[in-house]
Amino acid sequence: MLIVKKFGGTSVADKDRIFNVAKRVAEDYRDGNDVVLVLSAQGDTTDDLIAKAHEITKRPSKREMDMLMTVGEQVSVSLMAMALQDMGIPAVSLNAWQVPMKTSSAYGAARLKSIDSDRIQAEIDHRRIVVITGFQGINKYDDYTTLGRGGSDTTAVAVAASLKADKCEIYTDVDGVYTADPRIVKKARKLKEITYDEMLELASLGAQVLNNRSVELAKKYKVKLEVRSSLNESEGTIVKGGTKVEKLLITGVACDRNAARISVMELQDVPGVAFNLFNLLAKNNINVDVIIQSAGREGTKDITFTVDESNLEESVSILEEHQEELRFKNIIVNSDVAKVSIVGTGMMSHAGVAAKMFEALYDAHININMISTSEIKVSVLIDEKHAEKAMNAIHDKFGLED
Amino acid sequence: MLIVKKFGGTSVADKDRIFNVAKRVAEDYRDGNDVVLVLSAQGDTTDDLIAKAHEITKRPSKREMDMLMTVGEQVSVSLMAMALQDMGIPAVSLNAWQVPMKTSSAYGAARLKSIDSDRIQAEIDHRRIVVITGFQGINKYDDYTTLGRGGSDTTAVAVAASLKADKCEIYTDVDGVYTADPRIVKKARKLKEITYDEMLELASLGAQVLNNRSVELAKKYKVKLEVRSSLNESEGTIVKGGTKVEKLLITGVACDRNAARISVMELQDVPGVAFNLFNLLAKNNINVDVIIQSAGREGTKDITFTVDESNLEESVSILEEHQEELRFKNIIVNSDVAKVSIVGTGMMSHAGVAAKMFEALYDAHININMISTSEIKVSVLIDEKHAEKAMNAIHDKFGLED
Repeated sequence: MLIVKKFGGTSVADKDRIFNVAKRVAEDYRDGNDVVLVLSAQGDTTDDLIAKAHEITKRPSKREMDMLMTVGEQVSVSLMAMALQDMGIPAVSLNAWQVPMKTSSAYGAARLKSIDSDRIQAEIDHRRIVVITGFQGINKYDDYTTLGRGGSDTTAVAVAASLKADKCEIYTDVDGVYTADPRIVKKARKLKEITYDEMLELASLGAQVLNNRSVELAKKYKVKLEVRSSLNESEGTIVKGGTKVEKLLITGVACDRNAARISVMELQDVPGVAFNLFNLLAKNNINVDVIIQSAGREGTKDITFTVDESNLEESVSILEEHQEELRFKNIIVNSDVAKVSIVGTGMMSHAGVAAKMFEALYDAHININMISTSEIKVSVLIDEKHAEKAMNAIHDKFGLED
Repeated sequence: MLIVKKFGGTSVADKDRIFNVAKRVAEDYRDGNDVVLVLSAQGDTTDDLIAKAHEITKRPSKREMDMLMTVGEQVSVSLMAMALQDMGIPAVSLNAWQVPMKTSSAYGAARLKSIDSDRIQAEIDHRRIVVITGFQGINKYDDYTTLGRGGSDTTAVAVAASLKADKCEIYTDVDGVYTADPRIVKKARKLKEITYDEMLELASLGAQVLNNRSVELAKKYKVKLEVRSSLNESEGTIVKGGTKVEKLLITGVACDRNAARISVMELQDVPGVAFNLFNLLAKNNINVDVIIQSAGREGTKDITFTVDESNLEESVSILEEHQEELRFKNIIVNSDVAKVSIVGTGMMSHAGVAAKMFEALYDAHININMISTSEIKVSVLIDEKHAEKAMNAIHDKFGLED
């Protein structure tokens, strides 16, 4: 069996943890399996490198940032290869160039385009464990790129797809996918299985178990994913295709506290105004989430939307720079908001799921700011301080603990 | 003018030093020159990375060590590019793969084979300062290699040669080449010029100003080298071709305290015994320096030679492993020895130079262990404790302070 295993930065933070991973991997190898490891940068390395850059300049170019950041994983993979070799297991480390893993050119937020599996396969054929840098790639200019935080999951799935691996295991600090974050909802229950689509909605809604793009890729290439704990041997959650077998109406409750709300007030009500506004943000690689448009004062309109908190400052300054051409009066922002969502393929065939969620919030005296729905999810924006109460109320209402 | 400038690890150790270098380089750039920078890893980075590896395993594979080590320069070059950009100067960093700089396959001790200057030239044509990783290369397997300590000098000269640069400036913590190490010989004098050949002998004899291989390359490709101080603006020493113009008999006195002496006792006196012994060491990439063969007890012979102290342990264990086939009785080692040498093209046309050196040592009551000579140098092996006294005595004898 060919298994791709991905371990995050915490799992390779120091000597002991590196050997813990090496031992786990060694078992699989000795059982006759072929193993490919995908690693992130050690512990705080990424943050340390960012700090190093910010000491030099407040606005480092993205190209040079990626040149700097990519050393993080290279350190991890070489140390892991050394640890495996020390245990008598043949291993070789490869970085993005050596594989090679090609991406789009967008520094800091590149998309994986192709993985050449020839070298990896050749190393596997020599019965070596191949240790690959996650999170990074190279672009058409022969420059290093990074996939953005959490990108190592994507690397792992893409490597699994290109090798037609039997399984791709993502090791995290939680031991699977829960019906809600167990730190917030005490009655949260671990799911044995979840569909790609449900996982996708959960991932994009702030359940930080798996990177979104990695699930998309897994779905596209039918990679059997498994989310497992890096801390213990307990069974994880399998993410796979197909429709829901369990009879649950919804699969989980997720909460995204990093949402920030931006209201652009009193825009001229002319055709194309919404397009212009969102096109401007899109061109700057800012993802907009929930959008609401409402009538403003005196024939104008107000547009309210959410972005990730990390994009708030940039979004506002971009909008302000274009105030004249967009013709709005002012901007109101609020980052003390949380987006709480329910997800489940079950709701596709059941009416009243959204209503049931709203009822739960009403019972808990929580005010809803904005609402957004898709086929398999319902999201509401509420005050951040109510997030915990809201999640528990919804979890209870849908009886997810059973 | 196209100038290649090489700065060592101390010169880029922290933010302030990085900006110091950036400012110096910026002046050249603003004067209309094209500049290529070659950098080593920051300060103690190399040692830190070695420590990281040794924490994992006592004997890391050389391939993985190079994978680990090469991140050091990548950090330096990206930070330097950021610093230059912060000052408004276009800059781009490149590592060994991006150039690319191809080397032989010997991990940890690779030789530069070729530098493709297309990308560097293209970046220069865009009026960018190109910041290149020294010390590293890639081999035919698409793996990273390192050139060994001091390899950044070689990188700089090779880059200068491939670009047909007008000048290659090597910035060090000394401000030029002296007639002897000024820390040891107080009367040492800075030389304005020195020939490649003299510099070669000095470099290989322990004057740690320039890496030997870099001078060889400079000589081969007629690269005009200049050794300058990274700490001040004082004029340095120019290393160039031609024969000596100054009337000095010798150019300098050098001392290598890292020499270690190995005596292989009572070898069978049969043909090929010396060849077998030294071939064995060569195959393990161990450089042997001075060699003396003398008659041993009862028809046997003794062979004594020196190696670098860092190779002592490995040399001895290799010899002991092959004791049976080499047929010797025992090995005696001594690492408390120093090699003191005088160098100068002037001695080619003058007899009695060696004798004058021996006289200086005799007057100072210093015993000579071994002697070795070439056309332009004379080396003697003495007890390490006499090294300082020996250098001063010789420096005085030849009147080098004038």
